[in-house]
Amino acid sequence: MNPALPAAPAPFRVCGIAGSLRAASYNRALLRAAQELAPAHWVWTVVDLAPLPLYDADVEAAGAPEPVAALKQALRSADALLIATPEYNCGVPGVLKNALDWASRPPRESALIGKPAAMMGATPGSWGTARSQAMLRQVLAGTLTPALLAPEVYVARAGEKFDTAGRLIDEPTREHLRKFLPAFEAWVRGQAKA
Amino acid sequence: MNPALPAAPAPFRVCGIAGSLRAASYNRALLRAAQELAPAHWVWTVVDLAPLPLYDADVEAAGAPEPVAALKQALRSADALLIATPEYNCGVPGVLKNALDWASRPPRESALIGKPAAMMGATPGSWGTARSQAMLRQVLAGTLTPALLAPEVYVARAGEKFDTAGRLIDEPTREHLRKFLPAFEAWVRGQAKA
Amino acid sequence: MNPALPAAPAPFRVCGIAGSLRAASYNRALLRAAQELAPAHWVWTVVDLAPLPLYDADVEAAGAPEPVAALKQALRSADALLIATPEYNCGVPGVLKNALDWASRPPRESALIGKPAAMMGATPGSWGTARSQAMLRQVLAGTLTPALLAPEVYVARAGEKFDTAGRLIDEPTREHLRKFLPAFEAWVRGQAKA
Amino acid sequence: MNPALPAAPAPFRVCGIAGSLRAASYNRALLRAAQELAPAHWVWTVVDLAPLPLYDADVEAAGAPEPVAALKQALRSADALLIATPEYNCGVPGVLKNALDWASRPPRESALIGKPAAMMGATPGSWGTARSQAMLRQVLAGTLTPALLAPEVYVARAGEKFDTAGRLIDEPTREHLRKFLPAFEAWVRGQAKA
Repeated sequence: MNPALPAAPAPFRVCGIAGSLRAASYNRALLRAAQELAPAHWVWTVVDLAPLPLYDADVEAAGAPEPVAALKQALRSADALLIATPEYNCGVPGVLKNALDWASRPPRESALIGKPAAMMGATPGSWGTARSQAMLRQVLAGTLTPALLAPEVYVARAGEKFDTAGRLIDEPTREHLRKFLPAFEAWVRGQAKA
Repeated sequence: MNPALPAAPAPFRVCGIAGSLRAASYNRALLRAAQELAPAHWVWTVVDLAPLPLYDADVEAAGAPEPVAALKQALRSADALLIATPEYNCGVPGVLKNALDWASRPPRESALIGKPAAMMGATPGSWGTARSQAMLRQVLAGTLTPALLAPEVYVARAGEKFDTAGRLIDEPTREHLRKFLPAFEAWVRGQAKA
Repeated sequence: MNPALPAAPAPFRVCGIAGSLRAASYNRALLRAAQELAPAHWVWTVVDLAPLPLYDADVEAAGAPEPVAALKQALRSADALLIATPEYNCGVPGVLKNALDWASRPPRESALIGKPAAMMGATPGSWGTARSQAMLRQVLAGTLTPALLAPEVYVARAGEKFDTAGRLIDEPTREHLRKFLPAFEAWVRGQAKA
Repeated sequence: MNPALPAAPAPFRVCGIAGSLRAASYNRALLRAAQELAPAHWVWTVVDLAPLPLYDADVEAAGAPEPVAALKQALRSADALLIATPEYNCGVPGVLKNALDWASRPPRESALIGKPAAMMGATPGSWGTARSQAMLRQVLAGTLTPALLAPEVYVARAGEKFDTAGRLIDEPTREHLRKFLPAFEAWVRGQAKA
């Protein structure tokens, strides 16, 4: 081992989910931008929420469907959870809440308790998912999931910040992600020591 | 026509939805109790949320799936919307939010704008869906859906208030519903004049 | 009386309050802009919240202090309440919540039950008081105060929209207020019929 | 030094505030109960919010009033913040929000950023301050104040749990506090390592 070389950082395993199912969703694009801009040692598992059924305790009692088990497994294997959420009707999309409802169940087998999380949000509108993220924080408090307080990521007027291929082209937002992502990792690693 | 008989009230058409899919759900049972205890001229359409897909704008663009069209039609045909909601993770179930997301879309074809609504909630726990109902109010403000302010219906410790067949047996709660339901109708009829 | 002249509209009495005490507050300026742009038959009572003490049930029990009595009297005399609120720490300012706490007390003497209200918000920042207004809606539901759903008034980047004398100079915002204010009145008059 | 004796734990300095000013307030009583039941090495500074003026940025610009400086000093000197909050109008009392608004200002001199906090709530009613605590969490996210997720302290039907002298006499609640308080300390000490 060459002592002149810094040790490579240990892998940082992140489970990413986007609250929109639309193929051209700005929030899916924002999650891809995070993958593009994250440090090289980040290891990503992005879980598509589309295959999840609606939460039904009777279905759960008969055995969690495979997509639910996959989501929970991805969460359990990850060091942290990164959520990209749109704002629908002043709040978190049902799609995202449904995924969190499944992941939190049953209580003793919740995959969310103590799993450090951060959130980002993009919207074509002006308020940058401010209400959706506030609501998501309330839900994550309910699932006993610690959530990063700062920096925050609000992408308003997303139509101007992504190109038609869904690539984040707004340099200030890219720069903000370059700072946000390592700050998230540092906080998660601190939480692990706590 | 016998002038000694009071005129029968005009039918009051109510669309009822429950935010839980579980067959033995307390909230489904609460909605059945409302049907049992409502005035005779109430005409109910209870929409099961189970057949709804997860909201996906691409699916929507290809034409609303039949269960979505049915939900929206039921809302449009109704004078009012009555929601029974559990509390999942300090908030509205994803199942319910997903239904409201669909019903609100696309904006010009929202079935929720201006549709008077009221909410009830039952929970086996102690806080009676207080946070879930507060969150639901925020969502209904987002969908431009006027929501009844009072009386409110919170059913805590539901396990003691419904029998094993899911019938509401708690007399104070039954009495409260007997007052709540006509108050809801009176408010809705007032809103129609407004 | 000349039948060719339309009847002057009945006075519309509005109680206005701003959630910021700062003399140069954008929200105080926004409330002044509303006064400037409102129809001529609006009659304003703007209540300054600065003289209110902190809510204390012991003080209340000894008799409401004069500024509290004045606030409640202004509310009772008004057809409607118009609130201009900043966003402090993701929410409603304590100053504003304190005023609403006083006005709602004691419950049988609340000056807020059933009093139609609307809200506006201005902020130097980007999110336009979205979270503060959402929180204010929750509080107004708690006080049983019906709140206008739409149109909404969010003034972001207020530093560009008011001149140094505190006059609203942004024409789109002025135009929006010219539509918002009559819409508020129409809704309030409808609620009175309801 | 006798190696057989365990080292006394380092003092744990807690700043306590109650969101009600009423002398016989259940939340002031709950904060006293926490003082009674806390480990012996906890060092308390309870700050009375009554002397605080209403937040006014002009007053702030002229120099923070003494009670504000005292509150901020108490927060800065403390390892952690413990808040006891009632629920007024579905939310945090204006009195409490006003204190947090002052303590957060100006942003570079906020006494709340990074200060670990926990909350408790007591109410004579049934819902145990569930909505108030949810709202307080949103405010603490706004002030960048990490808040303990669990255990939580909700004291409903407080009239049965405190005696007329304001002493907490409900043994299950006392036992819950005996577990809550050390859990809070352990979490705060972990955050300090993070």
